[in-house]
Formats: sequence, C-alpha cells, structure tokens
Amino acid sequence: MDNINIKILAHELNLSAATVSRALRDSYEISVETKQRVRELAQKLNYEPNPSASNLRSQKSKTIAVIIPQIANSFFSQAINGIEEIARKRGYHVLIYQTHEDHETEIAFINSLMNGRVDGILISVASTSRNSDCYRNLSKTIPIVFFDRLIEGLKTVNIITDDYESSFDATTHLIECGCKKIAYLSALDNLTTGIRRTNGYCDALIKYNMLFYDELIVKSQIDAEQNYELIKALITEQKPDGIIASIEELALPCYHVCKELKLNIPNDIKIISFSNLNTASLLNPSLTTITQPAYEMGKDALSILFKIVDKKYFELDESLVLKSVLIKRESTLCN
Amino acid sequence: MDNINIKILAHELNLSAATVSRALRDSYEISVETKQRVRELAQKLNYEPNPSASNLRSQKSKTIAVIIPQIANSFFSQAINGIEEIARKRGYHVLIYQTHEDHETEIAFINSLMNGRVDGILISVASTSRNSDCYRNLSKTIPIVFFDRLIEGLKTVNIITDDYESSFDATTHLIECGCKKIAYLSALDNLTTGIRRTNGYCDALIKYNMLFYDELIVKSQIDAEQNYELIKALITEQKPDGIIASIEELALPCYHVCKELKLNIPNDIKIISFSNLNTASLLNPSLTTITQPAYEMGKDALSILFKIVDKKYFELDESLVLKSVLIKRESTLCN
Repeated sequence: MDNINIKILAHELNLSAATVSRALRDSYEISVETKQRVRELAQKLNYEPNPSASNLRSQKSKTIAVIIPQIANSFFSQAINGIEEIARKRGYHVLIYQTHEDHETEIAFINSLMNGRVDGILISVASTSRNSDCYRNLSKTIPIVFFDRLIEGLKTVNIITDDYESSFDATTHLIECGCKKIAYLSALDNLTTGIRRTNGYCDALIKYNMLFYDELIVKSQIDAEQNYELIKALITEQKPDGIIASIEELALPCYHVCKELKLNIPNDIKIISFSNLNTASLLNPSLTTITQPAYEMGKDALSILFKIVDKKYFELDESLVLKSVLIKRESTLCN
Repeated sequence: MDNINIKILAHELNLSAATVSRALRDSYEISVETKQRVRELAQKLNYEPNPSASNLRSQKSKTIAVIIPQIANSFFSQAINGIEEIARKRGYHVLIYQTHEDHETEIAFINSLMNGRVDGILISVASTSRNSDCYRNLSKTIPIVFFDRLIEGLKTVNIITDDYESSFDATTHLIECGCKKIAYLSALDNLTTGIRRTNGYCDALIKYNMLFYDELIVKSQIDAEQNYELIKALITEQKPDGIIASIEELALPCYHVCKELKLNIPNDIKIISFSNLNTASLLNPSLTTITQPAYEMGKDALSILFKIVDKKYFELDESLVLKSVLIKRESTLCN
C-alpha cells in the first residue's frame, strides 16, 4: 500500500521513490526544501506510512548497547536507569556490557556489535582505553554517543559533566573550611575526565597559594587493596588535613583507613568525593559529594543517540556539558 | 580433517558418525558405555577434535543473557560479577536485562531471546512474576537457570540461599539482644524467596513466645516514597524495638525515618537487613546484615548453565541452596 503511495508521490513531484522515502523519514541527506515539498503533498493526499512495513524495511534491531566499565558503581547504575527510561518509551531493549576497565575487552565488545545486532552504542570508555584504530571510524560505521568518559582527539558526540569546575569548587570548599594541606586521589589519568579533575584541583591550590607538591597526589590503581595501602601511606606520611577522592571507589577506603588510624573525620581530616552513592547521607560521618547528574546524562545520551539512529543529522560542535552539584555534609564540616 | 577421523572412529566402532560426535561432546543422549568405547578408541588413534570447526557446527552465539529486576542493588551487581568471571574464562559475552520488577517486561525479554541470540539464560524473576505459560516449557526450549528468585511449581534448575534459616536466625539474634517487639518489612510476597523469609521470622517469634500480630508485618511496595511513609507509620504507631528488613532497599529508609523521628539506633530500635551493601560497615551506626553469597551464586549459576548448554544433562532433584551469613554490627548492639 504505502509503496504505491510513495510511487505516486514520487511521480507527482518528479523525484525518485528513494528520495521521497528518505524525505518522509526526515533524513539529513535530503534538502529542507525537498522535505517541505514532499510533506506538503503527502499531507494533501492523506498519505499515511505503514509503520510495521517501515520497521521491516529499516531492519532495526530495536536494541541498543551500553558499554561501561562496571555496573557496581552508583553513577553508572543511575545512568543506566536514565537510559532505560528513554529506551522503554520507544520499545527498545538495552544490552549492558561491562569492560571492567579493560581496553581489549572494550574493543572485543565493539567489534561484536558491528553486525547489526544493535542500532547504536552508548559508551563510557575504560580507564585503560586510548585513541586507537578501533575508535577512529566508529561513528561513521554505527551511531555512537560517548558519555562521561571519552577518547580525546576523536570527532565524536560526547556528553560529559563539568569535571574541571567541580574539582576546582571542591578544592575551594576545603580551603574555605580551613584545610591547609589538601591531598588528591587521582584516577582515570589517561582520560580527559580524570585530567580535567586533576587540573581543577591543581589550579585551585595555585589560585589560593596553597601548599602544593607531587607527594600530595596519589595515582590510584585498579586493585582495591593496593589503593587502601596507598591511601594509608599518604595519610601516615603526608598528614593531609583534607582529601579529594576523584572517583567514588576511593572514598570508602579513606573512611576505613581513618577508622584504622583512629583519625576523626572531619576534625582531623576532611573528605570530599566525586560520588553518586545513595548511602552518602547515612555514612558515619555523612559524606560531602560532588554528585553528577547521572540519570539525566543517561536520558540525554540516549535521546541524542536516537536522533543519530533516525538519521536526523546530529553534530555537536563541542561536548554537551551537564553540571554536577556539590552537596556539603558532615565530612567537611568546618572546625 | 576431524570429520574423516569421526568417520573412521564410527566405522571401527560400528556406530553412526552422529553418535560418535555426540559421545565426544559428552551428550546425555549417549549411554555411558558407548561414550567409554568411543573415548578409548579416540585416545588410541590420537584423535584431536578441531575446536573452530566444532564451534561453527554447534552454531553457538557465545552469549548468555542475565535477566534481573535491577542492577542498582548490591546483591545483583555482585552476582553479575561472579557470572562474568565464569563467562570470561569461556570467552562468552554477558547481556544484562533489567525488568524493574515488571512481569510483562520479563516475558517480552524472554520471548525476544528465543531466536538463538543467546545460548542460555540466567534469571532472577520480577517480584510481580507468577506461574504462567511463558515459563512452563521454557527449560525445554532454551538452557535456563533460576537464581535467588524462582517460579514456584515449575521443574527448573534453581540456585537459592537459605532464606528461611537466615530469617529465623536474624529474628533469634534480635530476641537475644533483648528485643520484645520485632517488626518485619516484607517483600517479594509472591515469590518463594519472600515467603520463606517471612516464615522464618514468624516461626522464630512463635518458638520464643514473642509478641506476634499482623500489624507488625508491613508489606513493602515498589514505590520508595510509599515505603518511607509505611515505615514511618509502623514505627510511630507500633513502636517496635527491632526491625527486620527483608530486602536491602528497605534498610536505608529505616535509617532516614529514625533520623527524622530522632530515634537512636540501636538504643531505641535495632535494625537488621538482608543486604550485600558494601557501605554497611560504614553507616551510622554500622548495619547488621544477612549477607548472601552473591558472587558465588553468580559463579555457580553460570557453571551449571554451561553444563546444560554443553548437553551434559543436568537435573537438580531439589534446588541448590547456598548459605547466607549473619554479620553482627552496631545496629543490633545489645543494650
């Protein structure tokens, strides 16, 4: 039925059937003027596309893949809930792949998704990922949106948060609370996300003429026990009066180390962490956090991905940046 | 190459090539005696199967699906890590589907997986799921293992924990700590998991001649705000001195309600929860938990699923039951 109608429309407009079909699907390949002409005639002739036929023709899998480092992390589980909210509205399935911060696993997943199994990919790359051939032409092969963690130097659609500003503000908050020696637990040092957070910390210290030397920055590892020992060594040797944890996984070991060393938070040492932990307000003491808008980020990421899937041409001149919120709690109470 | 060898083996043993092939794959369709004969000759003739050809022939997707209520839950995220540990060793991909406790979503997922997209399914059913046609012949259609939450009355392979005993022990612990009026926050009332937990609580109260009436049991809802109000009403009206939360999601609202009502945990009210929360020891006060062996459960569930996938016939006479652990912390400190 609809094919006949598309042919009639094409004949009347002196266009090819393919052009009419693309114009009706709002494809970026068709000029605004042509789309306008096609739509006007379609309306005039009461043309209604057959949705199931069009679904069949477009060979959509009605599935998208989400590739993330891990699900046992409040930021990612909240982001996934945002993604699923949007997916549900369009009858899409969401497949979740965990890379466990491994670059090779990430590439294996991406390659396995190239055969039409999914209509698009949302990805937050592993901490060990680097610019490689695999990512280079990815966005030309399959609709893809990067969120929170991206690959520097690639022309991709990215949704991130204001990592530099959040980290700068967190450091300023500790300074205002009276901290004189602020340590920083760095992570994601290969990625823009991590580098921006570290830079925010450094620049705030410089701006306020604070104590600032290399030993105050601890590079975290993937192994949790190693991180515990690194934090313990930092606190024992450098005796900082404030700590910024650049990822959620580093906040809890700080609490455990302070317990072991019988240090009082916030009197002896103040702690602030990038975190979406839902128990932050119930910890002893409650934890001051830089909370990312994870749920909104998930929703926005998939909404944009769908625009790309629908061939509504989408290009971000720069990354879409959402704002994080500093939530002050007992762990940074002023003396 | 290997086909010729299978043919030689078949000829020598006076069996069909299909039988030899199945025997070498340890299929349950072949008798133990025949497998023994085939293996002995295979060894004697130095027969080595070609792994990539056998992979091709078996048309495996090298992917399994995990269907769970939600990932933002410590039990499920730890179980998934166990599942992925086993999957990785065999080069399998893991797809994660969240039902958000919705029965219809669960059925839609299951139906969408019937086309060979995955080699098997691990499932922990939604709280609203019930015995329906969808599940009836499922295990004959696709390899499937139920973990933690199952459908009662179906002949399926199940891995659960000792829900009744854990709940009984938790109640006994509160009684030993001096509680006289113990309330219970029930959940999963449609499922065996929930029913067994409630029964453990009831039986312990009866055994120790404790106060026991309907108003002490609160049926939780899916909506978090509703649960907060239900718990607040319970504490205000019934004034219990002990509470057992049958799922992790109900423990944190107890903390928030006590904060709002200015009640001290554990002096005014003691709290214990089924939970795998990694912040349990850092809460104010630290939370006494019944901790399920989630990681081991995930590993065992997939190991058993692989046996079914490999056609090594597997039937559990009864469910495989793992033991949970009661970890006593400050929230149930004796007066």
